[in-house]
This record gives sequence, C-alpha cells and structure tokens, in this order.
Amino acid sequence: MATHKLLLLPGDGIGPEVMREVEKLVRWFNARGLGFETETDLVGGAAYDAHKVSISEDAMKRAQAADAVLFGAVGGAKWDNVPYAVRPEAGLLRLRKDLGLFANLRPAICYPALADSSSLKREVVEGLDIMIVRELTGGVYFGEPKELVTLEDGSQRAVDTQLYTTGEIERITRVAFDLAKKRRNKVSSAEKSNVMKTGVLWRQVVSKIHKAEFADVQLEHVLADNCAMQLVRNPKQFDVIVTDNLFGDILSDIAAMLTGSLGMLPSASLGAVDPVTGSRKALYEPVHGSAPDIAGKGLANPLAMIGSFGMALRYSFGLLDEADLLDKATANVLASGTRTKDIAPPGTNAVGTQELGDAIVKEL
Amino acid sequence: MATHKLLLLPGDGIGPEVMREVEKLVRWFNARGLGFETETDLVGGAAYDAHKVSISEDAMKRAQAADAVLFGAVGGAKWDNVPYAVRPEAGLLRLRKDLGLFANLRPAICYPALADSSSLKREVVEGLDIMIVRELTGGVYFGEPKELVTLEDGSQRAVDTQLYTTGEIERITRVAFDLAKKRRNKVSSAEKSNVMKTGVLWRQVVSKIHKAEFADVQLEHVLADNCAMQLVRNPKQFDVIVTDNLFGDILSDIAAMLTGSLGMLPSASLGAVDPVTGSRKALYEPVHGSAPDIAGKGLANPLAMIGSFGMALRYSFGLLDEADLLDKATANVLASGTRTKDIAPPGTNAVGTQELGDAIVKEL
Ligand SMILES: CC(C)[C@H](C(=O)O)[C@@H](O)C(=O)O
Ligand SMILES: CC(C)[C@H](C(=O)O)[C@@H](O)C(=O)O
Repeated sequence: MATHKLLLLPGDGIGPEVMREVEKLVRWFNARGLGFETETDLVGGAAYDAHKVSISEDAMKRAQAADAVLFGAVGGAKWDNVPYAVRPEAGLLRLRKDLGLFANLRPAICYPALADSSSLKREVVEGLDIMIVRELTGGVYFGEPKELVTLEDGSQRAVDTQLYTTGEIERITRVAFDLAKKRRNKVSSAEKSNVMKTGVLWRQVVSKIHKAEFADVQLEHVLADNCAMQLVRNPKQFDVIVTDNLFGDILSDIAAMLTGSLGMLPSASLGAVDPVTGSRKALYEPVHGSAPDIAGKGLANPLAMIGSFGMALRYSFGLLDEADLLDKATANVLASGTRTKDIAPPGTNAVGTQELGDAIVKEL
Repeated sequence: MATHKLLLLPGDGIGPEVMREVEKLVRWFNARGLGFETETDLVGGAAYDAHKVSISEDAMKRAQAADAVLFGAVGGAKWDNVPYAVRPEAGLLRLRKDLGLFANLRPAICYPALADSSSLKREVVEGLDIMIVRELTGGVYFGEPKELVTLEDGSQRAVDTQLYTTGEIERITRVAFDLAKKRRNKVSSAEKSNVMKTGVLWRQVVSKIHKAEFADVQLEHVLADNCAMQLVRNPKQFDVIVTDNLFGDILSDIAAMLTGSLGMLPSASLGAVDPVTGSRKALYEPVHGSAPDIAGKGLANPLAMIGSFGMALRYSFGLLDEADLLDKATANVLASGTRTKDIAPPGTNAVGTQELGDAIVKEL
C-alpha cells in the first residue's frame, strides 16, 4: 500500500486548533488502513518566534518532499512590526512560489442550512456554487522591481510590478476550462483590460485558448470592478471565475463572504502535473485567516481546515470515496445542528472546535 | 455676478440621455439668476467616431478652461476592438491625469426608500453612508513601464507598474481626514502592505499624516481583501475609506452596489487647490457606466448625473443652498414614488429618464 506523505503547517492564530481536528481524521483513516505519514513544522509568526524566519529551510525541504502540504493560517498583530522579508505572510508566499503552486482553487459554496448567516438575501445566495480559479505565482505578488527607495529629498517611492507572460496565463486558463467542463460549463475571465496591459494580454490569451481547445465551453470577459459588483448583485450568474493573483485575492474573499460560510471554505493550490510521475505539488488551506481575536479559545470552526483535507484526499491522492465519505459526514453533522458559533443560528447552542471535530469522527 | 463655466461631456451609452436632464436643471437655475455657461464636447467612443481619438485636443483645452467638467459615461461593445491608445476609457484617463484630479470622492449612500433594491439584507445596508476616497492619478493606472512586448520565441510579456510616492499619498490622505472630520471622524486605510511595497509606503505615510495632523480622528489600517469582505459583511462599520487607484476602483464599485442605488450615486474628482485663485479643477460623473443594454431607450436613471451636478454646485461653486435645494427636490420626488425602472419596487409603474428629470424641475 502506498504511503501518503503529509506536511502539516498549522501556523498562527487558530491554525493549530483547527489542524488538530484534521489530525484526528488522519488517525481515523489510518486506523482503517490508509497510510498517511504526517510531519509537522512551523510557518509564519510561529517560525519567526523560533528561528527568526517565516519558514525554515528545513521546513521548505519537507514541503518539497511531501505529497501534500496542509496549511493552517499565518499572521497576527504580534508580528506587525517584524522586518518585511520575514513577516508571517512571506512563509506562505515562498511555499506558493517555490513549490510552483500556480493554480489556486477557491470554491464558494452556500450551504442551504447556512444561507441565513449571509449578509445577502437568502434568495440571492441560496444554492450558490462558484469556483474561483486564481493565478497564484505571478502578477504583482512576485514581479520585479518590487522596492521602496528613499529619494534625494528624503521622500520615498515604492514600486510593485504586475507582470504576466503568455505561458503563465495559458496554464491557469486551462485549469479553469477543465474545471468548468465538470461543472456548469461556463468561464468568466476577470481583468482590467481597459487600463492594464496585463489585462489586455490576459484577455487575448484566454480567448485564444478558448477558441483552440475549449470552444464548447461558454466564455465571458468581465472587468474586475464589474465582476466584484456582479458578485454582490447576482453571484449565481457565475460558474468558474478565472483571474490574476491580486484580483483573485479580492474576488475570492468577496465570494467567500457572500456564502455566510467563511469558516467552512477550503482551498487548494496546485502545481503543474509532473509528466513523468503524474503527480503534482499541492498545498491545502482554509480560506479564512488566523483570526487572532478568537485564537486559543476553542471557538474556531474547523470545517474549512477539514474540507481542505478533503480536497487533498480528492486532488492529491485520488481517494474519491474517502473524500465523499468525509463530505457526507460533515453534511450530516451540520444537518444535526452541531455547529460552532460562527454558523449557529442566533439563540441556539454552539459547540467548540473539538466537539465539532469529534462529531465528525463519530459520524464517520 | 460671476459666471460659472461648465463643460458637458456626455460621452457614450446612456451618457447623453442623463446629461440632457442636467441641462434642464442648468436652464432652471439660470432662469433664476445663476450664470452657468455651458459648452458641450465629445469624449470616448463618440469622440473616436468623430475624430479617431478618445478626446480631442480642443476638448482638452475646454476642459482646462472650465470651472467644472460634467462627464456622462464612456465605452460600449462598438469600440471593443479600437486600438488601445484610443479606446473610450483613454479619454477619461487623460482628463483625470492632465487636469490633475487626484482625489476621487465616491459616496455610497443607501436611501431608506430604496434599501429593498439591495441584494443585501435591509438591516445590513439601511442608512449606510460611507465615502470612498480613491487616489485617481497614480498607481498602476499610470505607472511606467506599461507595455506589452513580444519575446524572441513569439510569446508575449505584459507589464504594468504600480508606483506611489510619499507626496501622492500625503495629499490624498489629507483629503480623507478632512472629510472624516465633517462626518463620523473615522478613516479606514486599505492596502496590501502584506504583499506590496506600495502598500507598505501607503500605510507608513497615512500613519505619519494621522499622527502629525489628525490625531483626533480615528484611523484603522485594513488589508484591501479584508476591506472587500467587511464591506459585504457589515458595511456600516466604515465612515471614510481611503485607498489607491486600483483598490479604489473595485472597493467603490462594491460599496455602490451594496446600496441598491447604483443609478443614483454621483462622484467628484478634484485637483489641488490653487494657492493663488483658491479654485481647483474638478470633474463630476455618475458612478454607473454607459449601460449599453439600455442606452437610447429613455429608461436610464438620471439621478446619479443630477447628483453629480449637485456635487459641482457644492464643491466647485460653493452654492450650498442651491445644492441643498436640489437634494431636497430629489428626495421629495423619490418619496412621491416617481422612480425609474432600476429603483421602482416590483409591480409598480416606472417612469422614464425624461419624466424623472421633469419631476425634479417641477419640484424645484
Ligand atoms: C496572507 C496573504 C499573503 C494572502 C494573499 O494575499 O494571497 C491571503 O490574503 C490569501 O488570500 O491567501
Ligand atoms: C472606465 C474606467 C477606466 C474607470 C476606471 O477603471 O477607473 C471606471 O471603472 C471608474 O471606476 O471610473
């Protein structure tokens, strides 16, 4: 039986708490004959406190060697003033870049039972199921020059560079179209081609790939500002949205917030498929952040982290039955009314992080 | 009596229709002794069709000479394939840049009578009144290099440059704090200082100006992605949001869409105050775009354009009583149930662009 190597990087804030619930699931699956091997390491503020870096070379080596990385969350006020190069986020950015995780899949699903937690009207979001495909290793996040310089008169000048090449856009476009074919067959490509040259290239390349390889999938081009508006006005018009790193950061957060289920949304960051082994590097993380305000209190919703493990079962290990089993257990537990505070209807009793994790193990 | 020189640039789509209603108001005010002199010129697709440019040198001269520019909207599918340098939006961008209109004020107000048109729950948006202050002449919109180059292997590479200097951030920060002092005394500054050097500088400069000049105003720093989320989750937590050109583009569109009153929201783009004359260049435009789908049908809501004229009365001409009068007339007409289709409750009769304009003149 193949062993599956998982690197757990719980990180900061609520990261460690929600990761602990995934460890319970790993033990459960291993007791039933699956061979998960886990290692754990530090990232973000936790790594800074221990080693004065946002991720150690050792942890990077483990990440390179793992079949999948499970990532909790990074950041918090404690590290607001650490040097830029070693701020908590730098660890996550390095993982994305060095592992070549160019495709970030962020599903935004509104669970009917939770539609009332949304700030949007029930009819606007009920049944919402969209997938944001965000380019994750290019754009303004990594383009050079990226610098802050002091001028002769003492004032400063900061520069970031938004850069995209044909190849970078082609590969993320293919990921989006492939996904759309298994869904509702529609891709919306968001850019600012009316003011950005990268937007012009983005639009051209998406159109070209569409015409050459996916002409049977519906494609629409939408300006990023309008896309943000339309997400608020009528999100169900979308199926797959493909967009660049920075717009993806914002649009996926909007989409997540619409659902009323932020604490439940997982994400996958995938690398290219290795032509020899057929495998790909991957990192799975909840969409929510480190939530310093509730960290350490046992209140955090572990479902986004658990769902991220579910995505790993599906995308990294091809364990589709196991992934379905986990999804079903989660749905049943939710339906039974066992919920953490963020998703419990007002006036009902909420459970803590551990109880919710235990309930899922029990349901399995 | 001073004359007030207005340049009207109706532009494309519904621009000309909504501008016609402002012309009625100008005539009404002139009949009561105010000295508005108006000129009209082309911009956007309309200018391209006539002169193969997005705005003529002649129109630019008139804009420079005017006390205020009233701008309708630009763009439409017809000009989707014109050369990049003369696309409709280029006319607007040139006006902003050449007139030095660095401060874009975008109020997002949810009129109680219209709260039900929002896709958000009534309690989330009712009474919402926030002001987005967007930097308008810097950032990725104008930074150089901005280019699309073909590489040796035939693939392409596109670059946009996000660039900010201390001085650019200082002046927009002051605009935001000055506004907050007349409002609810709170400024939220949105950037991505966790990934962008321009965000790092933005945050530093805003903090510095706050400490030195506006320590009595509440300041919070918020990451742009989180700001987008918070706008959806609980927009009433904000008073003034100050942000860069690109984030401002997106965040102000989200804020506008929340209100359910997109067709009603005006905006002002202001230059620096001339130390000699005390005046400043200004352009006023509705937040909505050219809406090609309803253009020419007499259905467009003229209230955003009329409100933009109201902002001109207030900010460019110091005609506060007249501005109040206009606001009151608008509120009364709305309260009487006279509404265009976008804001009429389902099942009620909607009026057209002209009837709504006429109703306001009558109410005045
Ligand atoms: C933590 C931060 C660097 C990150 C990003 O901006 O990409 C986060 O917001 C995300 O969306 O994963
Ligand atoms: C028309 C376009 C260039 C413009 C922008 O991106 O600034 C518009 O979206 C706006 O917000 O005024």
